[in-house]
Amino acid sequence: MATVKVYGPPMSTAVSRVLACLLEKQVEFQLISVDMAKGQHKKPEYLKIQPFGQVPAFQDENITLFESRAICRYVCDKYANRGKKGLFGMNPLEKASIDQWLEAEGQTFNPPSSVLVFQLAFAPRMKLKQDHGLIKQNEEKLKKVLDLYDRRLGESRFLAGEEFTLADLSHLPNTQYLVSTDRGELFTSRKNVGRWWDEISGRASWKKVVEMQNTPPRASA
Amino acid sequence: MATVKVYGPPMSTAVSRVLACLLEKQVEFQLISVDMAKGQHKKPEYLKIQPFGQVPAFQDENITLFESRAICRYVCDKYANRGKKGLFGMNPLEKASIDQWLEAEGQTFNPPSSVLVFQLAFAPRMKLKQDHGLIKQNEEKLKKVLDLYDRRLGESRFLAGEEFTLADLSHLPNTQYLVSTDRGELFTSRKNVGRWWDEISGRASWKKVVEMQNTPPRASA
Repeated sequence: MATVKVYGPPMSTAVSRVLACLLEKQVEFQLISVDMAKGQHKKPEYLKIQPFGQVPAFQDENITLFESRAICRYVCDKYANRGKKGLFGMNPLEKASIDQWLEAEGQTFNPPSSVLVFQLAFAPRMKLKQDHGLIKQNEEKLKKVLDLYDRRLGESRFLAGEEFTLADLSHLPNTQYLVSTDRGELFTSRKNVGRWWDEISGRASWKKVVEMQNTPPRASA
Repeated sequence: MATVKVYGPPMSTAVSRVLACLLEKQVEFQLISVDMAKGQHKKPEYLKIQPFGQVPAFQDENITLFESRAICRYVCDKYANRGKKGLFGMNPLEKASIDQWLEAEGQTFNPPSSVLVFQLAFAPRMKLKQDHGLIKQNEEKLKKVLDLYDRRLGESRFLAGEEFTLADLSHLPNTQYLVSTDRGELFTSRKNVGRWWDEISGRASWKKVVEMQNTPPRASA
């Protein structure tokens, strides 16, 4: 029986980051649905495990965690010998390089891309008015980040070197939404970024996550 | 001779995060000045070590890194037995808990507090007009985060438990600017947050960083 539990809907970018990591590491898990439309993530029992009322929350044997990137680092460390080895490096130098690009994702790629994901993908579903000024402003920011990525990905196959790692994986959730809301050109118009996106989004783990996102909640829980 | 090099001015919040970590770990370092007013951080030779043109950049023996939180993790791992032991935990469970709060700082505390630091501390020095709407909006966001911190710090002495760790340290740079630009009440009006701030800002390592921030660049380089 699975000891690892993930709380939250796969359509959340942060939840899907954790799911992709667990699938890469071939760690069995139980996905527990949190109905955000019904405000379940703000209920006292949920706040006990995730004080900010966000998804995902994560439980494994003797630990409860939140923050998707911290969960991914933990999963890679604890299950180092399972699934895709080296997802978080095979030695301290590789690990530091991956961590640097994972932080670049969290601090530089995520801020503009998560605003775009909300505005382009979630606002219409929630019947909220889109803020076109904000969309334009964040597209410009993201283009500058992707220009730097394109240069980096001209030097190495993946962000942290020649292997697919957690640093690449962490970019999948936001990019998937941008590609499916007609912003794919941001990525495909940049030669190296386009090649990289084809490769990372083609991984079996990520295809499985996208399938879970497109499956009604009950069936995936 | 010091092998560790840090590039950037101590007045940068990201640079000062790394300096505080190196001082806690008693790792000798050389601080190399990057004159941002003269655009040195956008020059080709600097972009070779920091492709985003941001500070800090970091070099140690056989590795070059950017992203302050990734640098701090690396320093704690490599110099685990020096200075403040357990700054990044003594076992995988402690480490995961610290990492979770370090991510909370990066993803939840930093976004509103860094906007406030720029608007309140840097905009006036750069003779830029302050955006009062943005200040108000981010103060409201920060208050909500600090309410959650206050609850957490009512349960444990520090964010990740009973010991001062990298998770607490990472909050020092932004908080210091907010306190010195008359926003201290955000922290001191919350009983547990106020107690925590007194304790973490009183550490010798942080006092040394503040002293470096108040020393003209030449002397500290």
